[in-house]
Amino acid sequence: MATNPFDDDKLREECGVFGVFGHEDSAALTTLGLHALQHRGQEAAGIVAYDGEHFHMHRAKGQVGDTLNAPDVIARLPGHMAIGHVRYSTSGDSIMRNVQPLFADFAFGGLAVAQNGNLTNARALRAAMVREGRLFQSTTDTEVIIHLVAKSGSDTLVGRVTDAIGQLEGAYSIVLVSRKKVIGVRDPLGVRPLVLGRLDASFVLASETCALDIIGAEFLRDVEPGEMVVLDGDGVESLRPFSRRRSRFCVFEYIYFARPDSRVEGRGVYSTRKSIGAELARESGVAADVVVPVPDSGVPAAMGYAEAAGLPYELGIVRNHYVGRTFIEPADQIRHLGVRLKHSPNRDALDGKRVVLVDDSIVRGTTSTKIVEMIRNAGAREVHLRISSPPTAHSCFYGIDTPEREQLLAARHDIEGMAALIGVDSLAFLSIDGLHRAMGEAAGRNAIEPQFCDACFTGDYPTGLTDFEEGSIGSELSLLEEDV
Amino acid sequence: MATNPFDDDKLREECGVFGVFGHEDSAALTTLGLHALQHRGQEAAGIVAYDGEHFHMHRAKGQVGDTLNAPDVIARLPGHMAIGHVRYSTSGDSIMRNVQPLFADFAFGGLAVAQNGNLTNARALRAAMVREGRLFQSTTDTEVIIHLVAKSGSDTLVGRVTDAIGQLEGAYSIVLVSRKKVIGVRDPLGVRPLVLGRLDASFVLASETCALDIIGAEFLRDVEPGEMVVLDGDGVESLRPFSRRRSRFCVFEYIYFARPDSRVEGRGVYSTRKSIGAELARESGVAADVVVPVPDSGVPAAMGYAEAAGLPYELGIVRNHYVGRTFIEPADQIRHLGVRLKHSPNRDALDGKRVVLVDDSIVRGTTSTKIVEMIRNAGAREVHLRISSPPTAHSCFYGIDTPEREQLLAARHDIEGMAALIGVDSLAFLSIDGLHRAMGEAAGRNAIEPQFCDACFTGDYPTGLTDFEEGSIGSELSLLEEDV
Amino acid sequence: MATNPFDDDKLREECGVFGVFGHEDSAALTTLGLHALQHRGQEAAGIVAYDGEHFHMHRAKGQVGDTLNAPDVIARLPGHMAIGHVRYSTSGDSIMRNVQPLFADFAFGGLAVAQNGNLTNARALRAAMVREGRLFQSTTDTEVIIHLVAKSGSDTLVGRVTDAIGQLEGAYSIVLVSRKKVIGVRDPLGVRPLVLGRLDASFVLASETCALDIIGAEFLRDVEPGEMVVLDGDGVESLRPFSRRRSRFCVFEYIYFARPDSRVEGRGVYSTRKSIGAELARESGVAADVVVPVPDSGVPAAMGYAEAAGLPYELGIVRNHYVGRTFIEPADQIRHLGVRLKHSPNRDALDGKRVVLVDDSIVRGTTSTKIVEMIRNAGAREVHLRISSPPTAHSCFYGIDTPEREQLLAARHDIEGMAALIGVDSLAFLSIDGLHRAMGEAAGRNAIEPQFCDACFTGDYPTGLTDFEEGSIGSELSLLEEDV
Amino acid sequence: MATNPFDDDKLREECGVFGVFGHEDSAALTTLGLHALQHRGQEAAGIVAYDGEHFHMHRAKGQVGDTLNAPDVIARLPGHMAIGHVRYSTSGDSIMRNVQPLFADFAFGGLAVAQNGNLTNARALRAAMVREGRLFQSTTDTEVIIHLVAKSGSDTLVGRVTDAIGQLEGAYSIVLVSRKKVIGVRDPLGVRPLVLGRLDASFVLASETCALDIIGAEFLRDVEPGEMVVLDGDGVESLRPFSRRRSRFCVFEYIYFARPDSRVEGRGVYSTRKSIGAELARESGVAADVVVPVPDSGVPAAMGYAEAAGLPYELGIVRNHYVGRTFIEPADQIRHLGVRLKHSPNRDALDGKRVVLVDDSIVRGTTSTKIVEMIRNAGAREVHLRISSPPTAHSCFYGIDTPEREQLLAARHDIEGMAALIGVDSLAFLSIDGLHRAMGEAAGRNAIEPQFCDACFTGDYPTGLTDFEEGSIGSELSLLEEDV
Repeated sequence: MATNPFDDDKLREECGVFGVFGHEDSAALTTLGLHALQHRGQEAAGIVAYDGEHFHMHRAKGQVGDTLNAPDVIARLPGHMAIGHVRYSTSGDSIMRNVQPLFADFAFGGLAVAQNGNLTNARALRAAMVREGRLFQSTTDTEVIIHLVAKSGSDTLVGRVTDAIGQLEGAYSIVLVSRKKVIGVRDPLGVRPLVLGRLDASFVLASETCALDIIGAEFLRDVEPGEMVVLDGDGVESLRPFSRRRSRFCVFEYIYFARPDSRVEGRGVYSTRKSIGAELARESGVAADVVVPVPDSGVPAAMGYAEAAGLPYELGIVRNHYVGRTFIEPADQIRHLGVRLKHSPNRDALDGKRVVLVDDSIVRGTTSTKIVEMIRNAGAREVHLRISSPPTAHSCFYGIDTPEREQLLAARHDIEGMAALIGVDSLAFLSIDGLHRAMGEAAGRNAIEPQFCDACFTGDYPTGLTDFEEGSIGSELSLLEEDV
Repeated sequence: MATNPFDDDKLREECGVFGVFGHEDSAALTTLGLHALQHRGQEAAGIVAYDGEHFHMHRAKGQVGDTLNAPDVIARLPGHMAIGHVRYSTSGDSIMRNVQPLFADFAFGGLAVAQNGNLTNARALRAAMVREGRLFQSTTDTEVIIHLVAKSGSDTLVGRVTDAIGQLEGAYSIVLVSRKKVIGVRDPLGVRPLVLGRLDASFVLASETCALDIIGAEFLRDVEPGEMVVLDGDGVESLRPFSRRRSRFCVFEYIYFARPDSRVEGRGVYSTRKSIGAELARESGVAADVVVPVPDSGVPAAMGYAEAAGLPYELGIVRNHYVGRTFIEPADQIRHLGVRLKHSPNRDALDGKRVVLVDDSIVRGTTSTKIVEMIRNAGAREVHLRISSPPTAHSCFYGIDTPEREQLLAARHDIEGMAALIGVDSLAFLSIDGLHRAMGEAAGRNAIEPQFCDACFTGDYPTGLTDFEEGSIGSELSLLEEDV
Repeated sequence: MATNPFDDDKLREECGVFGVFGHEDSAALTTLGLHALQHRGQEAAGIVAYDGEHFHMHRAKGQVGDTLNAPDVIARLPGHMAIGHVRYSTSGDSIMRNVQPLFADFAFGGLAVAQNGNLTNARALRAAMVREGRLFQSTTDTEVIIHLVAKSGSDTLVGRVTDAIGQLEGAYSIVLVSRKKVIGVRDPLGVRPLVLGRLDASFVLASETCALDIIGAEFLRDVEPGEMVVLDGDGVESLRPFSRRRSRFCVFEYIYFARPDSRVEGRGVYSTRKSIGAELARESGVAADVVVPVPDSGVPAAMGYAEAAGLPYELGIVRNHYVGRTFIEPADQIRHLGVRLKHSPNRDALDGKRVVLVDDSIVRGTTSTKIVEMIRNAGAREVHLRISSPPTAHSCFYGIDTPEREQLLAARHDIEGMAALIGVDSLAFLSIDGLHRAMGEAAGRNAIEPQFCDACFTGDYPTGLTDFEEGSIGSELSLLEEDV
Repeated sequence: MATNPFDDDKLREECGVFGVFGHEDSAALTTLGLHALQHRGQEAAGIVAYDGEHFHMHRAKGQVGDTLNAPDVIARLPGHMAIGHVRYSTSGDSIMRNVQPLFADFAFGGLAVAQNGNLTNARALRAAMVREGRLFQSTTDTEVIIHLVAKSGSDTLVGRVTDAIGQLEGAYSIVLVSRKKVIGVRDPLGVRPLVLGRLDASFVLASETCALDIIGAEFLRDVEPGEMVVLDGDGVESLRPFSRRRSRFCVFEYIYFARPDSRVEGRGVYSTRKSIGAELARESGVAADVVVPVPDSGVPAAMGYAEAAGLPYELGIVRNHYVGRTFIEPADQIRHLGVRLKHSPNRDALDGKRVVLVDDSIVRGTTSTKIVEMIRNAGAREVHLRISSPPTAHSCFYGIDTPEREQLLAARHDIEGMAALIGVDSLAFLSIDGLHRAMGEAAGRNAIEPQFCDACFTGDYPTGLTDFEEGSIGSELSLLEEDV
């Protein structure tokens, strides 16, 4: 069980955010929080701190532990309030201009903003503002937000932020830092997570509780869907500027994205994954000798499966930890060996066995195919692949990097077709109702008022998708391609 | 005679610009042009190209030859029009956000801007626009210009640019690229240079003619003070949107900044420097055996001096070319040896001689002092220092990096004091009238209508200095400090 | 379960070796083999290949995946035979001259040598040869071996190698490549591992079977203690030039060093570790709620313990995989948080629980102390630490990096003292007889003829220790200190 | 006039050496000395220092100013005696194992050796020693020397060094450091330079006087051909172990290799080059308007030519100093512009003029051709190329990197052919007698007892060339190719 799959064939969370008000080591705390949130974005990270006089920013490509925790960096970020951001970005967008937080000068002073999630009307908003003569210098949604803040007629920062956020469509957890306040906002459906904690006299916002744990902060509560939390010298103020709607939290956070040691919306992620594995065993048990996880993504579900099925849990696959991020693309003579550079079969646990292989999801199916071949070569007599989520057949527009729909294996094949392609003796996914049962919803998915955002499984998108409708205004923008 | 002094004790030109319209290799040409203009800024460089569909940008810290001329970089910058920029920046500002060209999306499409020079009302303009709710994300003057373009009510790009530039105060040569045009503008006094050339069917803008020579382009003419030159499919159009004023070209471009092989405002820089040296010999001749230049800045003036004085010109100082830009700051035991790492005395040419040592200027005087000591140690019997410009006693606000006034040797000491500090037997500067005579103004400097900007010698600044007046509005901005 | 603990408080294997004869992709295969052996040495790696005409060498600091698997590197190492080496080296020795393989020209042609292990009479042999006028240019044992080969009077390479190796004392598995042969030798006690495999028509030597698996080679057998295996155009020849002695294989290879998916001396490492964990549960069971491994070193033993004890196995500690090898040493404000950068507690699995915490060994005890504190803070009610090996109280002289004896916790404290320092409710180590029982020796350790080298637990060193005796001749050498 | 041509079409000196005895800052002084000698080798540099107890070594690829002058490097090289080396190496040999100084342990203690020059019987000596069972680990001549020292039967270091050097053939200036002494030796013909200096109470050896000047040391004298100079606690001892022969100093050191500010064998290099230029004007004067040097190699000769010819000396070519050593190979679209990246024509000085273009030598002729084309394009009416040396028609075997003979322009064409290829109106080389006259030999070259080594012009090699004779024993070695 670990936090990084080094696996190209996984969906990826695109961002994590952190904020702290009222602590003299705010940049150091933010660095630690971002380090704990690194699984939510490995490509770049940034911090903005304010020391009562100046804003200080440091943004860098690379991982937090390689860039932000150096003594000289921390020293250049003094102040008692700070926000931070980790980012994974899709190819072509990986330029410094897009690394967050974004900062801008306003009439009321500076403001920095960082966001987790994705807007579904950002291009439309942007196009409209460009027509008004407003300048855009990046391609991020976040720049749209700060422009909306800038053009608001409100007298107060909270009023301006409310004006701005009221125009947004999509999924977003946002943190902001001004001269006086750190603010956190979660979208009305609460699709992406955001939690509130306390460290001594200071308050902390973070995407997940693991970022509170690393600094020794106490978890207070989840920020609620549609809530705006304002941290300043007076403590914490909770505002509800937006109409209340039923929560649609992203169920994939439980299945794969969140760290196993985080608590999300009142549930422990690790034990939820074990429950999901147990439900999977109940739904699609099979005669077998051992249960083997695909490391590391399938580990807790495999443990739950093994327990529920009464089968031995065995580590049949060893990951090579020396496949780090600077790993050179191997020469042709080596490359065809593929997955074996990253995983090795543990013959001891596989030879002659009927194997239940557990993973959390199948995206393109490329890695699964290689792993199945590998464990067959190591002597596995049968391979039964069990997936602890329903088939992933739809793209996500809410801040998760998914391939185009036509690349999703489940969008192109039925179960039998997938099983044949992957080369397993049997294949089963968890049902959508089974997933909800494992989440404590005994009746399964509520067809009228679904309890989660499960659009990647069901195609039921809970928000408008303005930018993705035909004839969207955004397409006329002359966006810049930059490669720095 | 060379183009890089590697000398910390020199004034520095802060920028160079280049633009081309109508050539399929526009990015490659721009790279070459920027390479030729590298003496105008070594810290960062950038190019924006437009291929009829997309704008493409590449900006990087470092020198053109180390960053922009790689095949993969050129390949990512397709298009038949491009602009480029080289930049030297003062400490603290050296962040990627400030590297030019700047790009922004406008209602009429994208626009990229690059500037040589400095505005003297940028902070005031910026503060006023921030109050209007406009967003600023960098600290460059150039962002002020693109905001002014964005907020103009004009229907045409030329109209918008005219509106914007009409509000600027200071010295600026600007190039812009839109979807249709490449535009060049020079400020009404023509303080900074800008030239127009032709390469086959395409037109070229550049800070100096050496950037035309490197691509084999023909020099057509200087862009005139206050002129706007528009390059597009119809050829070259010249606009004069601003009221005509008498030119005040920067005389220091002749003395030191421009490359010796450039032609500036109708004069060859190399032969002008020789004329200045000859005038210096006439003004302050002295009995001596040899004339020795401080390499490389004093070379042409020393040749002119030697010729006029009838003295042998000798290379008494050798530069070490292995003191490159990655040269590690030497250990303490080595550092006290100072200048000898960069220069060596040529005893052959100095021993027992009365030496006239010629340099172009004295800023802080630190290097001069070390060089004089070095050539005395090599046996020079007398050292007479001759400077081919008047004493530099005032800061420049027009795009030249000058130290604070109190650090200028000439602002703190008279000639005798300077001679004593530097340790020479005699010291003489060229007079301000002598300088004008060498420039072909037989009557010297016209007190009523000066022929050049010579503010660094005279303190006579030809423009308003809004931002530098007491109580300047700009001081209330909460500018961000970033260190990337 | 993984192959790299990123843990400073572990003993470290110092080297791994690989060799192949008769395959046209010998360098690519060697790269893969070394990648699989990376856990045996992360600091540097090297390959020598021979193509029938020239020897080709590439050696580099860093990990195989970052250095050796680049297409251009593989392309520069043509040939049908090759040997390779991975190396971990102690501080001060990390210079390129010491990176293996070593190569030298002999009268019979070139020879390259790579070694796993450590000689205990290398300094004495070296000193004697220096007196004879022989030149030494590195500080490695391996250079001693090639000098012994060079000075042998034998006519054949095998004779020379036999002469050389007959003079060695210590633990060594060696591979050599000449113009005609690849040779593998294991020391008479077989302290370090070496296995023989076959890939199609070619033969392969490797420190562990995981290096055969990665290239799809078939495992043939362990090279026997004292055996010399000669691979050439005639196939495999087995020579036994040395007197036969009872094997004393390093038992710590089973406990920690070897990869879990390797088979060593006929046993699977993974299942052996589970057996050891089960024996530990039998010897020192305790009333508890959950069994939690210290990842990753304690994982299989914890699984065996949980099974034997009938307790749930839970992942109570999450490793952060983003603590990679370029991780910057954190700033002071962050550093005091220590272990939490690398591990996080999983509160779900710990809160309110009586925890059996399982690890493979304790060296200095620093990491254990931090982990225990961390899981107590996460709510663990009791912590019972169980170690799947006897106390490590003696240094290793056979190729394992151990701290000085006084730094070993078990050399300074008894069990109670250790428990108090680490802060656990109880502490137990596996007994030496229990270890042997888990290895299948029902009667425990044979006092007369011990079955393994267990000197790090018992102080019973199976070879002479010439260089470490008082008055050792080696101390008079004027060894060079180099820092490249 | 400068010290680095950045020109691929020049012969290159391959090495420089430095040594100091009796100064507490010996490593810092050696770093400075090597920096001054950087023109003799830019690829790698190394220092060995001895502090009375340990030898310390630092060797690195790259230039001295980028590697050796860092505070931490100097700090790791304590001691009162040191030697150093700069190296240029031909392609394929550029590996760390070959970087000097070489160090080895001997029965009498450590010894480090650094060499300038080249042996012509190194392969033969090496092959003979390999047959005796001696180990060679590099491909340098220097390793041959230390083996000869090791196998000598003499009781003293001086005796051993004498034995070793007595067997060498070729050109060599060598410095050595042992526990007690620093030794300098020059070959019996004195082909390569070596000078002796004093700094306070310490003595210094260096390839050129410029390395004495940089540390403020006093020049004492040239080490004589065949002399061995021993520096130790007793001062300087001069030994003459070898039979005396007439000096044959390398005349090309005067023409191009040595730094202009050095004094070599009693002559100032700068003024010698001017004399050579004057002699060239006398031999091959031509009606012209200006004399223009090819920078920087032709500068002093052009000055001498102009003076003798009574013509104006003009800087018609500007070098671009931003073509540094990390300059990226330009993209295809740029590359065809060739020489203009490095040089620019100064139209001011060329347009409409009859130009005498002066350079020191022609090797392949590639650069000359481009420069001539460039100055014609800048308006030169006639171009008369004058070369301040005879045609370079033979390879050098004495430590100068020369192309294969068939690549030398003068080996393939007569003067008319060369003039046509280069595209000049006339071409003249200095005659061999003219060269000797310029060196003060009024009668020209002495046919019986030549005063210099001028083999590259005449093919008259003053030593045996054992390794280059047919059937040379060295060819049977199985040398290793390494690419680190």
